[in-house]
Amino acid sequence: MITFYDFPSTKPGQAWNPNTWKTRYSLNYKQIPYKTEWVEYPDVAGLCKKIGIPPTSKNADGSDLYTLPAIYDSSTGTGIADSLLIAEYLEKTYPDTPKLFPHGTAVLQSSFNDAFMSKLEALWQFVLPVTATRLNPSSEEYFTRTRTAVFGKPLKDVFPKGEEHVAEWKKLKDGFVAIDGWYQKSGGSTFIMGETPVFADFIIGGFVFFAKAIFGEDSEEWKDMVLWNGGRWDKIVISLEKYAQVV
Amino acid sequence: MITFYDFPSTKPGQAWNPNTWKTRYSLNYKQIPYKTEWVEYPDVAGLCKKIGIPPTSKNADGSDLYTLPAIYDSSTGTGIADSLLIAEYLEKTYPDTPKLFPHGTAVLQSSFNDAFMSKLEALWQFVLPVTATRLNPSSEEYFTRTRTAVFGKPLKDVFPKGEEHVAEWKKLKDGFVAIDGWYQKSGGSTFIMGETPVFADFIIGGFVFFAKAIFGEDSEEWKDMVLWNGGRWDKIVISLEKYAQVV
Repeated sequence: MITFYDFPSTKPGQAWNPNTWKTRYSLNYKQIPYKTEWVEYPDVAGLCKKIGIPPTSKNADGSDLYTLPAIYDSSTGTGIADSLLIAEYLEKTYPDTPKLFPHGTAVLQSSFNDAFMSKLEALWQFVLPVTATRLNPSSEEYFTRTRTAVFGKPLKDVFPKGEEHVAEWKKLKDGFVAIDGWYQKSGGSTFIMGETPVFADFIIGGFVFFAKAIFGEDSEEWKDMVLWNGGRWDKIVISLEKYAQVV
Repeated sequence: MITFYDFPSTKPGQAWNPNTWKTRYSLNYKQIPYKTEWVEYPDVAGLCKKIGIPPTSKNADGSDLYTLPAIYDSSTGTGIADSLLIAEYLEKTYPDTPKLFPHGTAVLQSSFNDAFMSKLEALWQFVLPVTATRLNPSSEEYFTRTRTAVFGKPLKDVFPKGEEHVAEWKKLKDGFVAIDGWYQKSGGSTFIMGETPVFADFIIGGFVFFAKAIFGEDSEEWKDMVLWNGGRWDKIVISLEKYAQVV
């Protein structure tokens, strides 16, 4: 049995984190049994050290950084973090399940992840200040403190206002227009390789779900995003709903 | 019969341009008959206008920019420029030839192109000043003038010296290390999707061939590059030699 570690929100059972969504989509798509355990931000490092899940990168001070998503697979005794590494582990360990990287596309999908993330640089300032307000107190304190350090100003002052809002929102939209440009080669399919999704679709789905959940469907931001590129982005989230069960 | 338009160098029959190489590899891989016509830089716009090949982007002053590679396919009366658009045209028009975008990977390969090019930003300053010296007089004048405008200083002063050389060369190497990171998912195959090449391999092959041809095999630059990432980059060029005939 696999235990899948995810971040809770103030609304029980409401998953939101874009990176953990990639793993939930992967597990559900592969129909691999698992159960979710909810972990507050300050508890992630201790949990990972206890179970033997390796850090995924370094903090600015050089210390180990432990992140979610992470899984522990009791059938193999393996603990692993990082959505891409988890996806590769699942693909290798459960070879008879639907493929996340079919036809030798693991390298192309890794490059897609880099290219996609480079187009989202304007997103964080809009979405992280709102994210903080959706977390339980211990996570909220941790999240606000660490993101304030990253931005170099109080997280609540990061959300752009006035003309800056207009300019930065335009940058984000331009990023999605560039991604849409890649899709002009797709012949009109919803998913990146055609009729069935692959891991790259779960990357996009995770981020668009995140924006939709954090902004809220009645927000000005989401009501604008949903119209971008002929509605492509929400269509991906809707098409992935069958793999979106929170269990 | 397809006519393929490429840039000459001072050495007859020596192709060098990374973007036209992508088209040569594509044509040879698909075994589509064609002949090369060599076009000097100042003659590209006039040729394209005459044949009806559309511009690929805009100059800084808003006027149309015509570029190579371009092809004219007399069997369909189609003229087209841009290596990716040409590849898509060939794939669609000659469906019974080996695939450049197999298994619905056109979108992933488009994103790969963006991701790959973003890692090469430090390359131009090293390679373009040398490139100018390999061109015939009319192309050399055009190339030096237009690239001087882009860099904002004489092209001959662009090549980094001393500590700047060390720092910028390191940036280029770091870019290739990042690309190599994507390949860590490949299970050791030379080509990006496995045993047979796809268009993305022709992108890499075109740029590495370019660096090898312009620097020269005895240069310090190439002798360093050839060692990067376990020799991955030259191995791609060597593995593509069977698709490298200049005809």
